[in-house]
Amino acid sequence: MKPPGQEEFEASSAHENVPEGELDNGPGPGPSPDDPSDIDCRELGVPKDPLLFIQLNELLGWPQALEWRETGRWVLFEEKLEVGAGRWSAPHVPTLALPSLKKLRSLLAEGLVLLDCPAQSLLELVEQVTRVESLSPELRGQLQALLLQRPQHHIQTTGNRPCWGSPHSRKASHSEEALLKEQHQNPLRQKLPPGAEAGVVLVGELGFLAQPLGAFVQLQDPVVLGPLTEVPLPSRFFCLLLGPPTLGRGYHEMGRAAAVLLSDPRFQWSVRRASNLHDLLAALDAFLEEATVLPPGRWDPTTRIPPPKCISSQHKRLSSQLREAKGLSAPHPAPAEDRHRHGPRVSSPELQRTGRKASWYPSDFSDAMHPQCFSAVLYIYLATVTNAITFGGLLGDATDGAQGVLESFLGTAVAGAAFCLMAGQPLTILSSTGPVLVFERLLFSFSRDHRLDYLPFRLWVGIWVATFCLVLVATEASVLVRYFTRFTEEGFCALISLIFIYDAVGKMLNVTRAYPIQRPGSPAYGCLCQYPGPGGNESQWTRTRPKDRDDILSMDLGLVNVSLLPPPECAQRGGHPRGPGCHTVPDIAFFSLLLFLTSFLFAMALKHVKTSHFFPSVVRKVLSDFSSVLAILLGCGLDAFLGLATPKLMVPREFKPTLPGRGWLVSPFGANPWWLSVAAALPALLLSILIFMDQQITAVILNRAEYRLRKGAGFHLDLFCVAVLMLLTSVLGLPWYVSATVISLAHMDSLRRESRACAPGQPPSFLGIREQRLTGLVVFILTGVSVFLAPVLKFIPMPVLYGIFLYMGVAALSSIQFMNRVQLLLMPPKYQPDLLLLRHVPLSRVHLFTAIQLVCLGLLWIIKSTPAAIIFPLMLLGLVGVRKALEWVFSPQELLWLDEQMPEKERSIPEKGLEPEYSFTGSDREDSEPMYQPKAPEINISVN
Amino acid sequence: MKPPGQEEFEASSAHENVPEGELDNGPGPGPSPDDPSDIDCRELGVPKDPLLFIQLNELLGWPQALEWRETGRWVLFEEKLEVGAGRWSAPHVPTLALPSLKKLRSLLAEGLVLLDCPAQSLLELVEQVTRVESLSPELRGQLQALLLQRPQHHIQTTGNRPCWGSPHSRKASHSEEALLKEQHQNPLRQKLPPGAEAGVVLVGELGFLAQPLGAFVQLQDPVVLGPLTEVPLPSRFFCLLLGPPTLGRGYHEMGRAAAVLLSDPRFQWSVRRASNLHDLLAALDAFLEEATVLPPGRWDPTTRIPPPKCISSQHKRLSSQLREAKGLSAPHPAPAEDRHRHGPRVSSPELQRTGRKASWYPSDFSDAMHPQCFSAVLYIYLATVTNAITFGGLLGDATDGAQGVLESFLGTAVAGAAFCLMAGQPLTILSSTGPVLVFERLLFSFSRDHRLDYLPFRLWVGIWVATFCLVLVATEASVLVRYFTRFTEEGFCALISLIFIYDAVGKMLNVTRAYPIQRPGSPAYGCLCQYPGPGGNESQWTRTRPKDRDDILSMDLGLVNVSLLPPPECAQRGGHPRGPGCHTVPDIAFFSLLLFLTSFLFAMALKHVKTSHFFPSVVRKVLSDFSSVLAILLGCGLDAFLGLATPKLMVPREFKPTLPGRGWLVSPFGANPWWLSVAAALPALLLSILIFMDQQITAVILNRAEYRLRKGAGFHLDLFCVAVLMLLTSVLGLPWYVSATVISLAHMDSLRRESRACAPGQPPSFLGIREQRLTGLVVFILTGVSVFLAPVLKFIPMPVLYGIFLYMGVAALSSIQFMNRVQLLLMPPKYQPDLLLLRHVPLSRVHLFTAIQLVCLGLLWIIKSTPAAIIFPLMLLGLVGVRKALEWVFSPQELLWLDEQMPEKERSIPEKGLEPEYSFTGSDREDSEPMYQPKAPEINISVN
Repeated sequence: MKPPGQEEFEASSAHENVPEGELDNGPGPGPSPDDPSDIDCRELGVPKDPLLFIQLNELLGWPQALEWRETGRWVLFEEKLEVGAGRWSAPHVPTLALPSLKKLRSLLAEGLVLLDCPAQSLLELVEQVTRVESLSPELRGQLQALLLQRPQHHIQTTGNRPCWGSPHSRKASHSEEALLKEQHQNPLRQKLPPGAEAGVVLVGELGFLAQPLGAFVQLQDPVVLGPLTEVPLPSRFFCLLLGPPTLGRGYHEMGRAAAVLLSDPRFQWSVRRASNLHDLLAALDAFLEEATVLPPGRWDPTTRIPPPKCISSQHKRLSSQLREAKGLSAPHPAPAEDRHRHGPRVSSPELQRTGRKASWYPSDFSDAMHPQCFSAVLYIYLATVTNAITFGGLLGDATDGAQGVLESFLGTAVAGAAFCLMAGQPLTILSSTGPVLVFERLLFSFSRDHRLDYLPFRLWVGIWVATFCLVLVATEASVLVRYFTRFTEEGFCALISLIFIYDAVGKMLNVTRAYPIQRPGSPAYGCLCQYPGPGGNESQWTRTRPKDRDDILSMDLGLVNVSLLPPPECAQRGGHPRGPGCHTVPDIAFFSLLLFLTSFLFAMALKHVKTSHFFPSVVRKVLSDFSSVLAILLGCGLDAFLGLATPKLMVPREFKPTLPGRGWLVSPFGANPWWLSVAAALPALLLSILIFMDQQITAVILNRAEYRLRKGAGFHLDLFCVAVLMLLTSVLGLPWYVSATVISLAHMDSLRRESRACAPGQPPSFLGIREQRLTGLVVFILTGVSVFLAPVLKFIPMPVLYGIFLYMGVAALSSIQFMNRVQLLLMPPKYQPDLLLLRHVPLSRVHLFTAIQLVCLGLLWIIKSTPAAIIFPLMLLGLVGVRKALEWVFSPQELLWLDEQMPEKERSIPEKGLEPEYSFTGSDREDSEPMYQPKAPEINISVN
Repeated sequence: MKPPGQEEFEASSAHENVPEGELDNGPGPGPSPDDPSDIDCRELGVPKDPLLFIQLNELLGWPQALEWRETGRWVLFEEKLEVGAGRWSAPHVPTLALPSLKKLRSLLAEGLVLLDCPAQSLLELVEQVTRVESLSPELRGQLQALLLQRPQHHIQTTGNRPCWGSPHSRKASHSEEALLKEQHQNPLRQKLPPGAEAGVVLVGELGFLAQPLGAFVQLQDPVVLGPLTEVPLPSRFFCLLLGPPTLGRGYHEMGRAAAVLLSDPRFQWSVRRASNLHDLLAALDAFLEEATVLPPGRWDPTTRIPPPKCISSQHKRLSSQLREAKGLSAPHPAPAEDRHRHGPRVSSPELQRTGRKASWYPSDFSDAMHPQCFSAVLYIYLATVTNAITFGGLLGDATDGAQGVLESFLGTAVAGAAFCLMAGQPLTILSSTGPVLVFERLLFSFSRDHRLDYLPFRLWVGIWVATFCLVLVATEASVLVRYFTRFTEEGFCALISLIFIYDAVGKMLNVTRAYPIQRPGSPAYGCLCQYPGPGGNESQWTRTRPKDRDDILSMDLGLVNVSLLPPPECAQRGGHPRGPGCHTVPDIAFFSLLLFLTSFLFAMALKHVKTSHFFPSVVRKVLSDFSSVLAILLGCGLDAFLGLATPKLMVPREFKPTLPGRGWLVSPFGANPWWLSVAAALPALLLSILIFMDQQITAVILNRAEYRLRKGAGFHLDLFCVAVLMLLTSVLGLPWYVSATVISLAHMDSLRRESRACAPGQPPSFLGIREQRLTGLVVFILTGVSVFLAPVLKFIPMPVLYGIFLYMGVAALSSIQFMNRVQLLLMPPKYQPDLLLLRHVPLSRVHLFTAIQLVCLGLLWIIKSTPAAIIFPLMLLGLVGVRKALEWVFSPQELLWLDEQMPEKERSIPEKGLEPEYSFTGSDREDSEPMYQPKAPEINISVN
């Protein structure tokens, strides 16, 4: 009996091989939100054609040693045999010369075209093909023998050494076996979906032919043509182009043209349905009609073009052809799809629908039976623990120990696990996120300034927040989130990121202030250990003085009751450290700075390893995904190696709250007056705004259509859970928790289902996400267990955590489009990237929009720096108003490109109004697709 | 009277505007070594056609408000008007649809074709064009009025605000004036060479036309067609494509096709010589014959392709056409040129020719009269001074002050200026380069180990080296440099770079050892100042004790003659510092490390600013060029800000040698035995090898054909000068000097003459270098004057210099191809760049070659680490033997790609033998040109 996981694995891996022909879709690297061709094909009920693998066999060595050699192959893109290097070239977009296409056309027009040929083997096929009048029987025999000759394939095995098909072992049985083995071991076979068919193009110069010989065969049923193809696929098409030797590479180029034609899905579609030569030539002409021409003088035709990241035009081509075939008229492109292609974001349509989650509940556990879930658990667990340590450490730092690492672990485990069990979107990972951390810091300073008992005050804030959130749930206020456009989100994210950066640097400077640098000439030199009583109990000192130590003072000045013991040991022995140098610890300031910079730069560098070209992609992914963990480990290692007394993370020695003297339950009033429980409603209102914004914006991002979630979202249920957990964590004095964008997206990403089969040059296509509750649950159970890791955590130096904190701020800041626009300010127009935005909005307007955002950010920062800092959530909400006011400054078209539509606009402006305003800008449709349209960066709003 | 510089400037700027039509050549970004089309055209005596500016005016606003608007323009590449954004798109390679070309062809075939039209104004032209039978007189009038209507141009002024041609001001006089001003202010005009002509394409849909109207006019003489074009150029071609409104964008696309055709130099060439419609259509067909076709399914036709870095095929196209026209047969490509294009390096043919330099001598000063020379002087002066400081500081460090910064300044000034006055290649900048620095360090350790008097010993080494070099000059041994292939050069450079890196890190670690870190628990705490005599002259202490200081010890323990004064002050007052903490200076170690890392990282980052997209290119160039200077300044600034006692650069207080007690002349024997003057010949032999290799390899690189030097090289003269200067510097005890590759290349680069006029999307073309002696001379005179800067130099912390030293090593190491191949070892084949090398040599062979180089380097390193380190120059020479032995392992083809030919091979292997070995690899010609062939990195052999 197989283990259940194994079974599932096989079943799903079979499932993950894309259905026949689906490879052609070539969606972008990310999930493709709306795949028109998919829908169209299903709508029209047309079965898709199988994928075609095309191979070009060339006759070489004329006249001495004729042999066939595979010199090119195509699935989606061309791979060329690098003869000198003995390897396949990188897949690239094929380029053809127009004359070779024309020559091919005329050769086919005059040659033999067999459609629906009933041949069942290579021999039959060869006989049929050579049945040409122009050939004498002798020549025909010679030609047949030649065509039956086994070609040489260049098969790249997994080891880099190529394995040439053994050309000279003609013993039938052995060579057949070897061939079969070779064909089946071909790694290319793994990349082709089941049901794929082959097409073979044979070209060459043959001295005994008097005139060119062209033949095009479409087999009725695909037939395995023995050794002809490098992969053992049944062949559907066969094209033969032979002729007398001529100058140049005419036949090679014609062969390439034939192969490229066959690799075109539309040509393929037509030829499969062709009934005579005329249809075939019509298909070729249709190909030419749609081909792109590059002028000779400006383009070197030998340039190899790398495969584009996404091929958008093809969906339309194929579906329009299907419609034509069905006699339907081409529909106008859906405006939503059109806008999606053009860049501006569209609000999620899922927002108002709260799915019935109960019906999915059993499957939420059974769906987790897949090995991928194990690695997802490991990845997310490490990320969660890193977060718990960092945020716990920083909260402890910011609240004088009212919160701490232990609380952070415990709270994360309890809140996270509870959320995973109850929530509407169980892929969400709860975390004590950036905005809440910032607010808690402000709340603590406020309560300290007003001499309040912090935890009871905080309990009441939590109670009120839970109440407000429940009211929001009851009134279905989540629909309001549609007023948060990118403008608001970016303001939100930028402010929080800047606070992170400012705090990280500030805390680092505090360390250098706590351990001042000793400059020459400063009096901070020297420290003595003085024992009580002048001239007194001399004997005591003599007793305690360590014998093994070269204590210069004790030898020379034996009568005096001082020694040069370091301050801690001095105090231990009842002495008093005396002297200006006693309170300085040297080297700590610069070493802390080094640790801070090292962990920051190392985390940044590791994050970028993902896009480098070194190491296999698995290694790069691990290094990049665990950049924070590795940076922390490096910092700890450096610190341990030098063994300096850097400030470390505070961890209680036992399992008890970090704040000494409090139990796990927070008392409802403590030392505070009773009316504070009512007054707490005011800060609670501010915190509610923050939590509502953070939670709902995250939820919208997670439930975007492009992730193809099947089980639906649960906006209100999620907010309800957050409210309940708010209450719980406030009572226990644990940190507050909200959905975290980045870590939740990482969770989803680690559970992606992707097609395994993909043609060379094609990125794997996205199939969906393993939606289940188990991975999250296990992650949080493991986090709970990790409370016992606490004793290890006290070795983490605080400067390392500050470095990670800085890294988080910088990473979050650089992920928003706003920063790209700020960079545009510094970039001369000549060097600006070819953004769609810049094609449609004048640069001065783009700069104006960016400047307004900068001013808003500056105002928010000023408010944050005043004593009124705590009201910053209200000001964030004010961004919605500013955005509304922008409608007086910018046209709807500009706002569509720079931001997105606000909900009212979606009703009041007709779709036509969104078209650019000049009557003659149909021209924009012509080239609105840049070579690679970068995916709009995710709003990294939760900064973790 | 104009100042002479100004005059020269104007004359040369006229000269620098490319002669007519030369813009078409489109050479690569760097200097193009052999420009076949140039040569061909001159050979054939054919005047080149003027450059053509083509503009597409489109009729928009039908039927309400007809107006012409310029929507596209072409010189070499296409620029499209982004209507929404109101700016010109980035220049890109135009893509056409085949049907639009065909439609254009049929429209022209049926339409009006006027070749050699004698029209003298727009009015005449319009009359001629509208003289079509199908038009009624009324329609003709309407059409004429329309054609005379002034079009709107989008003129991008230097400020980013676009300036639309005022469309509604029809008052003739005013609008004409404004138009003229607008046309003349157009920045595009500056980019077009004098003599450029214009072509205008007018397209549009016109309701009152019953059938399409096509006209193609080639004017006999180019005529300024008033407001028709955005630049006031005389128009040569005029193309009108109008017709009844149809669906789609047919006319726009046809207009683009006509414009792209006209922008093709071959089509243009043919049409200028066409005599009838048939010739015109034949030219169009020839265009199609050569066009590249991209298949529709794999390529999105709306993609904008950035201009390629170099267009190689065009030279051949045009020159073959010229030959065809002259009835000449196409020559076989010269093998050298062919190999150049394919990547492997070819030795300079200049090596044996020592030009007669005397005849150029006067012009060597008069040619310096150009403002560009001022900036070159500033740039090279700063670089030279930076070098003098760094190398002087390091030499002083390595030789315990036998050399120093003062010697470095003085030597650089004397040797450099003398070389500039005498040498064959006066653009060369002498410097105390890496290999010599390494050797001097070894020589010093050797003489210290054997208790020799260093400077007299060194003097004899210098005398012998000078003698050996003169022998080498007399025997014309410079031709031997041809045996130094890239293999040898890279081994040389890699070893020196690694020594740099190793030394920099080692010296940094020495600093941390000199200033140890105080760990907790280590006894290095505390330091007392003890006064002589126990219980003795107490009064003395009381006298000297500073009253204003809070000296805790003096108050509490007044009886004891100790205080907490810092060690320097203690010693000053007659006390003895006592205690384990007296000799430690805290914070220096980590701060030095910070300075080291900061200067290294800052220099690296600034170096990369050049390739970023921020700031105007001038700013980027300055930041990048002065990266070392700026990094040193930053380091000094940081150090001065904190004021710590970091180790600083040693500078003598007066103008005298760094070593105390020696005069400026080195005594010939000193404390050494007489026979040492003979024995010095042995190390001198080693140093001669080093100097010969370094000097000659640098000379070969500087005199490469691609720099287009007109005044010839002087290999032997240069070596002679180096020998004489060797003698001089040895006698004076100054550092030794050799030509420095990098700084000399920078010197040449700062004196590049480039064409000013270049079409949008085209890099400026390289015209040559201002070869003269004055810039170098002034640089070294300024360096000599800078000796008086010495007092400022003592503020430079040594760790900063070590950081710059590390940067130099890393930069030199990363500039060699060997490192690229080492990187390939770490790169999965899938991610490897599409190098020509990898297309032609199997990956396993590439790796084998790299591994052999790594082993050689390892052996060299081992030798360098033994006491026999000083013989490393001999071992470097051994690399030549290893390279020779490699011919047993690799085929000549592989070595041609991986390295280059050794001289014997050039004789013994016929050119045919260099072709790849498979008979069928004519196929390699098809695509041996990658999209962008990176220039082979310069061998940064002198590491400075």
